[in-house]
Amino acid sequence: MNKEKMAEWLAEGSIAIPKLLLHHYKNIGLTETEFMLLLHIHSYIESGVLFPTPAQIAEKMTLSPAECMDGVRRLIQKGLLAIEEHVDEHSIRIEKYSLKPLWEKLVHHLLSEAFYGEKERYEEEEK
Amino acid sequence: MNKEKMAEWLAEGSIAIPKLLLHHYKNIGLTETEFMLLLHIHSYIESGVLFPTPAQIAEKMTLSPAECMDGVRRLIQKGLLAIEEHVDEHSIRIEKYSLKPLWEKLVHHLLSEAFYGEKERYEEEEK
Amino acid sequence: MNKEKMAEWLAEGSIAIPKLLLHHYKNIGLTETEFMLLLHIHSYIESGVLFPTPAQIAEKMTLSPAECMDGVRRLIQKGLLAIEEHVDEHSIRIEKYSLKPLWEKLVHHLLSEAFYGEKERYEEEEK
Amino acid sequence: MNKEKMAEWLAEGSIAIPKLLLHHYKNIGLTETEFMLLLHIHSYIESGVLFPTPAQIAEKMTLSPAECMDGVRRLIQKGLLAIEEHVDEHSIRIEKYSLKPLWEKLVHHLLSEAFYGEKERYEEEEK
Repeated sequence: MNKEKMAEWLAEGSIAIPKLLLHHYKNIGLTETEFMLLLHIHSYIESGVLFPTPAQIAEKMTLSPAECMDGVRRLIQKGLLAIEEHVDEHSIRIEKYSLKPLWEKLVHHLLSEAFYGEKERYEEEEK
Repeated sequence: MNKEKMAEWLAEGSIAIPKLLLHHYKNIGLTETEFMLLLHIHSYIESGVLFPTPAQIAEKMTLSPAECMDGVRRLIQKGLLAIEEHVDEHSIRIEKYSLKPLWEKLVHHLLSEAFYGEKERYEEEEK
Repeated sequence: MNKEKMAEWLAEGSIAIPKLLLHHYKNIGLTETEFMLLLHIHSYIESGVLFPTPAQIAEKMTLSPAECMDGVRRLIQKGLLAIEEHVDEHSIRIEKYSLKPLWEKLVHHLLSEAFYGEKERYEEEEK
Repeated sequence: MNKEKMAEWLAEGSIAIPKLLLHHYKNIGLTETEFMLLLHIHSYIESGVLFPTPAQIAEKMTLSPAECMDGVRRLIQKGLLAIEEHVDEHSIRIEKYSLKPLWEKLVHHLLSEAFYGEKERYEEEEK
């Protein structure tokens, strides 16, 4: 086992998942498999692949490409994933996935939870 | 929406998942749901809860406590999770989950992959 | 080199630093050395050491214990670190560091930046 | 304060720093400021800027562009940072920073530490 291999492994790095998402994903309508699907899409985007194909996603998962495609479609329907169109530096139209809807849903959920938390505390004190 | 709330959210922090695990979990026999189960256990351990109950794990997941317990049992059988016994500073015997078997399986897989990669390259050059 | 050692290294894990902090620390009055000081304190807290001594911090840094103590004092004066008092489960009074002031300063800075950004855009459009 | 802004902040994400590096950087000859310099270079690379200029690095730091350039030069001399030449997909020759030497130094240090640890234990048992 050589040192170079181990240095390569260390260099691979990590993906950081906000604990807020980990603790609240089920409240915004995500299942575990959908969470993992988004995680793989996020990881592809971070490594420069902005619009991974179902086949590319399926390579890393226990799902088939058809199941990945279904999953992506469901995430878009639920308003947790979006496809954006861009024109790149060579004037070529490209598509890319955006997780913006996911973060907005999460913030929306957290805010309404905070609001109801405050309200309950307030009503409690009023009694 | 006050600033304190937002500062709290930033303070929550993130969990870092090694990309090596994200890219190879299916090769060591993990499904997506089992990956998430391990992630929740890891997150509990990090926050000081060393032996979360199935009910505590189920709170964060779309699974029932019974399904979480089944999942934990399956992970132990597959050799990807262990339960260790410790005696804490007040001489009380405590149990805690350990992810050590997971990391050992991952290293084992990566090493054999690296070994076969080398071997194939070598045989290729020999031809 | 055995597999167990490598598994241990993988198990060590990572600390996640919000990019917002990495991109704006100098705007809230942090130097690079102070950033690292906070990072070490944060890392100690995460591993269960809530109030590391200057000597413990200095172990990891190129600073002496006296320089670490000065740094901590400066961070408290700048309103970027706090010491909180708690009573633990055995009714013992304990002190611990809190990074809450850091996150509040960061949010404050981001909000005023966003506000002025909006204002400039608005005035631009008015012309 | 609108929700979109907060979603943007959440979307910014985090940089994961291996705890092994955080605990051992001083043993491989890095100062705190050099650690931060590498962190900024790493962050630029992750966001697709493979060869940030001293001015770009200085934007985020309390250092001047000249001091950043000195720092980069020192890191290269110490064998902790490298500049690699690539030919991109449009046949243009590009330069990029590589942190590979950093990870190799870290692994080298960890291995020799593990080796001497074993040796000491062995000699201890022999007595």
